[in-house]
Amino acid sequence: MFKKVLVANRGEIAVRIIRTLKEMGIQSVAIYSSADAESLHVKLADEAIKVGGPRSKDSYLNMKNIVSAALLTGAEAIHPGYGFLAENELFVEMVETVGIKWIGPSPRVIELMGNKANARESMRKAGVPVIPGSDGFIKDAGEAKVVASRVGYPLLLKAAAGGGGKGMRFVYSDDELADKFDDAQREAEAAFGDGHMYVEKVMQNVRHIEMQIMRDQYGATVYFPERNCSLQRNNQKVMEESPALSVTPIMRSMLGEIAVKAATALEYENTGTLEFLQDHEGNFYFMEMNTRIQVEHPVTELVTGLDLIKMQIEVAAGEHLAIRQSDVQIIGHALEIRLNAEQPERNFAPSAGTIDFAFLPTGGPGVRIDSAIYNGDKIQPFYDSMIGKFLTHGADRSQAIVKMKRVLNELVIHGVKTNAPFQAALLEDPTVLRGYFDTRYLEKEFMPRWVASQPTEE
Amino acid sequence: MFKKVLVANRGEIAVRIIRTLKEMGIQSVAIYSSADAESLHVKLADEAIKVGGPRSKDSYLNMKNIVSAALLTGAEAIHPGYGFLAENELFVEMVETVGIKWIGPSPRVIELMGNKANARESMRKAGVPVIPGSDGFIKDAGEAKVVASRVGYPLLLKAAAGGGGKGMRFVYSDDELADKFDDAQREAEAAFGDGHMYVEKVMQNVRHIEMQIMRDQYGATVYFPERNCSLQRNNQKVMEESPALSVTPIMRSMLGEIAVKAATALEYENTGTLEFLQDHEGNFYFMEMNTRIQVEHPVTELVTGLDLIKMQIEVAAGEHLAIRQSDVQIIGHALEIRLNAEQPERNFAPSAGTIDFAFLPTGGPGVRIDSAIYNGDKIQPFYDSMIGKFLTHGADRSQAIVKMKRVLNELVIHGVKTNAPFQAALLEDPTVLRGYFDTRYLEKEFMPRWVASQPTEE
Repeated sequence: MFKKVLVANRGEIAVRIIRTLKEMGIQSVAIYSSADAESLHVKLADEAIKVGGPRSKDSYLNMKNIVSAALLTGAEAIHPGYGFLAENELFVEMVETVGIKWIGPSPRVIELMGNKANARESMRKAGVPVIPGSDGFIKDAGEAKVVASRVGYPLLLKAAAGGGGKGMRFVYSDDELADKFDDAQREAEAAFGDGHMYVEKVMQNVRHIEMQIMRDQYGATVYFPERNCSLQRNNQKVMEESPALSVTPIMRSMLGEIAVKAATALEYENTGTLEFLQDHEGNFYFMEMNTRIQVEHPVTELVTGLDLIKMQIEVAAGEHLAIRQSDVQIIGHALEIRLNAEQPERNFAPSAGTIDFAFLPTGGPGVRIDSAIYNGDKIQPFYDSMIGKFLTHGADRSQAIVKMKRVLNELVIHGVKTNAPFQAALLEDPTVLRGYFDTRYLEKEFMPRWVASQPTEE
Repeated sequence: MFKKVLVANRGEIAVRIIRTLKEMGIQSVAIYSSADAESLHVKLADEAIKVGGPRSKDSYLNMKNIVSAALLTGAEAIHPGYGFLAENELFVEMVETVGIKWIGPSPRVIELMGNKANARESMRKAGVPVIPGSDGFIKDAGEAKVVASRVGYPLLLKAAAGGGGKGMRFVYSDDELADKFDDAQREAEAAFGDGHMYVEKVMQNVRHIEMQIMRDQYGATVYFPERNCSLQRNNQKVMEESPALSVTPIMRSMLGEIAVKAATALEYENTGTLEFLQDHEGNFYFMEMNTRIQVEHPVTELVTGLDLIKMQIEVAAGEHLAIRQSDVQIIGHALEIRLNAEQPERNFAPSAGTIDFAFLPTGGPGVRIDSAIYNGDKIQPFYDSMIGKFLTHGADRSQAIVKMKRVLNELVIHGVKTNAPFQAALLEDPTVLRGYFDTRYLEKEFMPRWVASQPTEE
């Protein structure tokens, strides 16, 4: 097992990883920006190294400094958490080049899954159902039209190297195809230096269901119960849960076996999550794969009793998976909401400042709060606004919800604004309470009502 | 189900009960002393009524005021928590007389179990193995001698109405019997107005193992996995765990069935705990029964996933037990340590004051902290020094211990002294880590070493 691991992250996920390292008897090295010197992850780690200025690009995205910090402190491995450099294959290559173990999959797999068209194609070849569309790239509007005649409109033209909506166009009829194809391709070439295009059907009334897997270096693989992350705003998950009401045990094992098959085809190592869209006929379509631990991993930990960060570290150290598929059982239902320092009533603008007082209502059965905040802590304007994850676990979904309402009701934070009132309103919504909603529900139906219900400022 | 329940307690257990009431949609009424106006249980309850001055006898033991508070607020039931009036049959009678439901057993059972000799006798008749000794009362030293010839020395002469060591004598030989009997009986008469005496063998090298049961008004009964509470100081439990390493599955079901049989014989309602001594041959001897929820109930909640306070309330409201024995499964291992505001290095003298800063290290899998403290809270000198219960849950005992060490290491409290360093030292002790220790281990072996290891003050 490793003697020392560097955690290339900040905030709650850095704290989460450091805690597991401590429990495993592994020395932990934190990195921090000049703004984060007093942050909890710095206080908890055995060692901490400043890697740059307050802006992420100078510190938490500063590849050379982070690798140098690992070398200086003699860290044998790096855990990236999520975000920042967690899915940057260049960084992983740099890490591995200097002989440090990456706690995650190989750069080859990260790069493959990072290119959406290649990810789609390799999954399709591995027998994973993908969103109907082109087989590989299309070279012009004519090829797109052939696909359209097969899968129907609306279509989504996408740049293979895409991201952030660049080189992407919705197409509603044959008439629009030629112009939009040219536009999108030109934009893709400008943005990515790569004009490869592909096309997918636009999926409507679908849920976001994801399957996480863990695979050791010897090929043993397990999958975990699915998570439903359909409540999203601006492509950010707002509330996550496991299991998903819309997934039957048969669907679960089918999806799980598909995910295991895909991981095997990729010769995957460590943990990863396949994100699917589920339609109302119960069909699943692969969307993308995240090649790192996810924000919402604790809902899975609550229903399974496992420590997924620990498993990541064990697998990276060359250990055999300590569990088999039959050891992965679902107990009850778990829910996560993301507490953000932001002002929902001002279009969710971030809210920085000092936490003058915080009461985090831990206590009683089935409550978990993963957070890096403390009384007197400063919430910086430079980073993601998420300051905590509130999790509840109950015998069933309604008990987990009741518990979450109670926790949100007890929460007190002075000094920064949070989205807690928004989250609490969400937990009063009849559709959310019923548990059946698609990925557009929050933005298209809940948000307009919620915005209208807010008192107007004088 | 009740619409409103009064919680006749303070501190962490009042908060614990109020939280479950909230989750059940039941209005909660807190009571408080004039010293506790800013306490967390007052802030969290839907209503709060001051019942008297700071001293317990004026407030939390003030029967008339508490019953009046219940009547005034229209509470339909009273949850007593533990301590204070939880095992006072006069109070229960008063509560029931005014038509309020007691969340606990009948005054008849509380009184029966409160008299140690009667408890012993009724358990013996119900087929529960008791500590070898007299059958019922003994009227003189001669009868004690007959018992001695059967069970051997040392013996313990005890007042039937006893408590707090009054009317109790250790006897090591026949020669001492007559004098000590007379002494003890005289003391008992003076203290309790009751000279009834009985005698028990002094059990040596034994563990404290307890079985909790829950019984509904229709006779359905379940037992929960045993707890090992052998680590004690001054007859106060210091660390508790479940399951006990020394209890095999066969012993567990045997003990459980005995506990269920006893509860049935007593026509018991609600929850109670039978405390046993276990000797090195694996024999169990009934010691006493607690007719209320216990401090250490959360270790059972962690390994079973149940909410025992919720079950208490459901049973008291006349609901049928929602689970069967086969639903009670043990998952992993749980540990509890009691965080006290005290100074271990000054013979555990209480430490009152204001909590200027507290960092309670919740977060990550398997940690639960039940506490009523917050930043700025005042620890009063009038009440029990326990300010929090730290619980960890792991796949096995060693994982639960490693997690507890990590949690204690992260804990920060400024403003009052705590026993955290003592607890941390306990978790480094090889005997504690092995898990096999008797009820005298902490005081006889650990404490002297620990005291000697403390730096002498200049």
